[in-house]
Amino acid sequence: MRTSIATVSLGGSLTEKLTAASRAGFDGVEIFENDLLASPLTPEEIRTRCADLGLRIDLYQPMRDIEAVPQDEFARNLRRARRKFELMRRLGADTVLVCSSVSPLAVDDDALAAAQLARLADLAQDFGIRVAYEALAWGRHVHTYDHAWRVVEAAGHPALGTCLDSFHILSRGTDPRGIEDIPGEKIFFLQLADAPLLAMDVLQWSRHYRCFPGQGGFDVAGLVGHVLRTGYDGPLSLEVFNDVFRQAEAAPTAVDARRSLLVLQEALGAAAPPAPAVPTGVAFAELVTPDTEPVDALLAALGFARTARHRGKPVDLWQQGEARILVNTGPAVRRGDTQLAAVGLRSPDPVAAADRAEALLAPVLPRRRSPHDAPLDAVAAPDGTELFFCGSGRWRADFAPLAHAPAATDVRHIDHLALTQPWHQFDEAALFHRSVLGLDAQESVDVADPYGLLRSRALSNADGSVRIVLTVGPAPTHGTGGAQHIALATDDVTAAARRFRAAGGRLLPVPANYYDDLAARHDLPEEELRTYRELGILYDRDAYGVFRHCYTQTVGRIFFELVQRDDGYRGYGAPNAPVRLAAQHALRAVTGG
Amino acid sequence: MRTSIATVSLGGSLTEKLTAASRAGFDGVEIFENDLLASPLTPEEIRTRCADLGLRIDLYQPMRDIEAVPQDEFARNLRRARRKFELMRRLGADTVLVCSSVSPLAVDDDALAAAQLARLADLAQDFGIRVAYEALAWGRHVHTYDHAWRVVEAAGHPALGTCLDSFHILSRGTDPRGIEDIPGEKIFFLQLADAPLLAMDVLQWSRHYRCFPGQGGFDVAGLVGHVLRTGYDGPLSLEVFNDVFRQAEAAPTAVDARRSLLVLQEALGAAAPPAPAVPTGVAFAELVTPDTEPVDALLAALGFARTARHRGKPVDLWQQGEARILVNTGPAVRRGDTQLAAVGLRSPDPVAAADRAEALLAPVLPRRRSPHDAPLDAVAAPDGTELFFCGSGRWRADFAPLAHAPAATDVRHIDHLALTQPWHQFDEAALFHRSVLGLDAQESVDVADPYGLLRSRALSNADGSVRIVLTVGPAPTHGTGGAQHIALATDDVTAAARRFRAAGGRLLPVPANYYDDLAARHDLPEEELRTYRELGILYDRDAYGVFRHCYTQTVGRIFFELVQRDDGYRGYGAPNAPVRLAAQHALRAVTGG
Repeated sequence: MRTSIATVSLGGSLTEKLTAASRAGFDGVEIFENDLLASPLTPEEIRTRCADLGLRIDLYQPMRDIEAVPQDEFARNLRRARRKFELMRRLGADTVLVCSSVSPLAVDDDALAAAQLARLADLAQDFGIRVAYEALAWGRHVHTYDHAWRVVEAAGHPALGTCLDSFHILSRGTDPRGIEDIPGEKIFFLQLADAPLLAMDVLQWSRHYRCFPGQGGFDVAGLVGHVLRTGYDGPLSLEVFNDVFRQAEAAPTAVDARRSLLVLQEALGAAAPPAPAVPTGVAFAELVTPDTEPVDALLAALGFARTARHRGKPVDLWQQGEARILVNTGPAVRRGDTQLAAVGLRSPDPVAAADRAEALLAPVLPRRRSPHDAPLDAVAAPDGTELFFCGSGRWRADFAPLAHAPAATDVRHIDHLALTQPWHQFDEAALFHRSVLGLDAQESVDVADPYGLLRSRALSNADGSVRIVLTVGPAPTHGTGGAQHIALATDDVTAAARRFRAAGGRLLPVPANYYDDLAARHDLPEEELRTYRELGILYDRDAYGVFRHCYTQTVGRIFFELVQRDDGYRGYGAPNAPVRLAAQHALRAVTGG
Repeated sequence: MRTSIATVSLGGSLTEKLTAASRAGFDGVEIFENDLLASPLTPEEIRTRCADLGLRIDLYQPMRDIEAVPQDEFARNLRRARRKFELMRRLGADTVLVCSSVSPLAVDDDALAAAQLARLADLAQDFGIRVAYEALAWGRHVHTYDHAWRVVEAAGHPALGTCLDSFHILSRGTDPRGIEDIPGEKIFFLQLADAPLLAMDVLQWSRHYRCFPGQGGFDVAGLVGHVLRTGYDGPLSLEVFNDVFRQAEAAPTAVDARRSLLVLQEALGAAAPPAPAVPTGVAFAELVTPDTEPVDALLAALGFARTARHRGKPVDLWQQGEARILVNTGPAVRRGDTQLAAVGLRSPDPVAAADRAEALLAPVLPRRRSPHDAPLDAVAAPDGTELFFCGSGRWRADFAPLAHAPAATDVRHIDHLALTQPWHQFDEAALFHRSVLGLDAQESVDVADPYGLLRSRALSNADGSVRIVLTVGPAPTHGTGGAQHIALATDDVTAAARRFRAAGGRLLPVPANYYDDLAARHDLPEEELRTYRELGILYDRDAYGVFRHCYTQTVGRIFFELVQRDDGYRGYGAPNAPVRLAAQHALRAVTGG
């Protein structure tokens, strides 16, 4: 099955777009007219460039408001069409998209529409071109796919077929099953886009908020299934208008796009990458730091013990219960602040996990090998975090045990990792973690920070032993853009917090007003409230259970959270996030950090 | 008439918000509960802070889903309310907002709602507090202001009144005239917000896209007129949820907010700043530059002559027709690139214009005086551009004529100035230019740049002799953020372009594909097309006339446009902007500029 992408889905100049599409493995492109008009390349040069890049030009869309118009207007349209067909011949494109008219001149007359489209198809045929007629969701008279097909059928012209677009069909809630009534050879083209389920004007929705299949709320795969059952054998082509993608670099967006089609094809049984080997736990989190002192002090106060040292690299293993933190000061670490650089995921089948990641276009990292290293399969997530797939703990053989035993433990394991994403890659990151790792995603939630809204989305495996929370700030320059945190699970957050403080750790102070409100909202014993107040423990409750949590100070980009998750509580304390964020801002304002 | 603002309308910490509100001249604030919860200040400290800042706490809104619920639920609500009333006593706030319930537990029973609200008002009265009940547009059973008023009336309690909110009323298209049937003393509060006219889910619309009165599409002033006719004498209070304002600095947003209320009060006859002295032309545009050479070369090639030099400062006057450009290399110029720093507006009454600007909170600049200087009244626009109000040309007395006569002229005058705005201040800038200068605004348009969408909005006086186009990039970091341009009006763009080229000027090259498309869309003579192609002249047509324009290379942040506006064409060539932007990007990629 061939894959294609419309140039409007990517940011940059036409040549940047074409290069990105080719490198991501697309077979073809739809050239959006504005991209051609703005390009200094001639049509012949564009044709050659595409050929060099292994891209077919599957579609060109220069025609608007063609049909069901008065004769003199139609004559002008035909004149314009001839010019465009000449251009397409130079370009080597053989299919032209014609969207249903939105012109105020258009009349509600299917017979006239059919006759004029047939006349256009006559002209197209002279140039070896096929006309694909598509119902825009906001077309003046024709706005459903079945109506467009009736017009095409009435025209009965061999060079006239229909184009289906998942957005235009699913945004109107039209039942896609009727697609199977269209003969496959009359479906000349298939455009795919997903979108978040917003209740808004369909034109605005379409022009600004489309996304790649699997990133929104539509059943795009279901629709494609109907199309394939007609015998359609043209490309699956992405046409996505998205304000954020327009600003992003073309190369990663193209990879994200192609991954979305691979996942779609897998869902349809049309592609078979290795099945997901869903991770079964977090083996370790690796911090890189230019200065271990503050990180070591923080880990020690949290009750971690330095239990082992890497045999060949400046990496220490800190452990408490099943929570393991690597602290890396090697020269290969990225410049700058202390940050989370890698996550080790316990995998039932590391090789299969890495194979699936590679099949889904995740950048595979060179295996870390040294005379002492166990080979570890690793890929890079969209934010650059390295994900290691770890088998039965063999990776620990690389570490030489130190005298220290693991500390007596308040912390059981890593509850979740919260990672701020680059602004342009939030949707990509969610799709990546779902498709590559096989995690399930919750809905996005908005969280108020004093300096703008954040969006946050949690992903986890079935038993909650792997939980990753993706966060994105309100704009690329947002001040708190880089924060990351590691949440540590404990059975008794009060004890853990007290021990941390006794060991010299500093907990994030929480305003007294928060506790007055807690008292008003929940019937908590005075004693309990007093403890929370004293330590800065936050409280949340959902339909399942109760969540108590508190935060450490921040080192570089990293802070820790101690969490007690009782009775099957499913969330992450999101209602408390505004208070936490404000407290962190306040602290930074004081410390100048 | 007192003015107030909800803390949620501003970005930052609670103390930053309070300080900004006070400095902008507000009389009071509504304290949004989350801002209080996240503040390290106690309620008593907040009370003192507000008093020190001259702010009354006009409203507190901690109550949700109070009324028309089962008795045990209501008992819990009353318990919570008591805690909140205790808090309000500490805060010194005497009015509490209660929004109509959205709870799934709420039943459709006005009598029950009235009885429970009366019971709540009983409790409030014990604390000296008044309850203001408001219909949320998405309330479960009560979602119109008249319905909320019927419930209040039925309750018949002296401590229970209604709160009106312009967003909730106007977003549902409810007729606001019925407001006059409510006795003024039972309207306990009035919240104001405007919003762009979007067809979207009202809750999303409300939470993300509200703006200050005069920045959206609602007739907020009309609504306030109805409210005032009831005898309402409480504050006009702004409650605006806006994703962009949340990220902006609180201080300028607060000034913008207060200006919007001043303009609203003026429209209602409740305030009388000096009437607008609408500018009647552009006297000059002033560029600052660290290096005059490239600017001088560009101006000379455009046909400008250096006709005068300032008697006391390193400022040259370049002139052609009625177009005057000042080139300033003084030490007081801002650092960095060549840019437009000031605009001289011909004013029928400079003193009145400056007085109005000051009354509408524009920063008034110190008059530039030196032994030689004519006093000029000037204010700063939101983007920092200095606007000078110039009388009958007296300012030119500061300049000593040079030998050069004004050049024989292709350029008549300055057609328009296009200024990129700081990302957070686009709405503020439009309101500023409308209200302070008295210009009329066109609708915003979206323009596709290769690296993201731009928004653009034009303002002008009645005869088009002053035209300012405000533009904003897709995100704060956007690469082309800083571009500015000066469009020069000519009667013959072809001649002007040729002369420019002959004088060594470089015109922005326009792709050949653009002209192929132009030929397809318009029936232009071959000869004319050939000329456009050769020179890089772009073409547009609207319902009134024809526009032909071309662009120079860029120096610093500045480039020039030559425009020929025929037969009353009203636009600015927006359909050609994507081609121009792509060509500018391509040139930068080549020159590395």
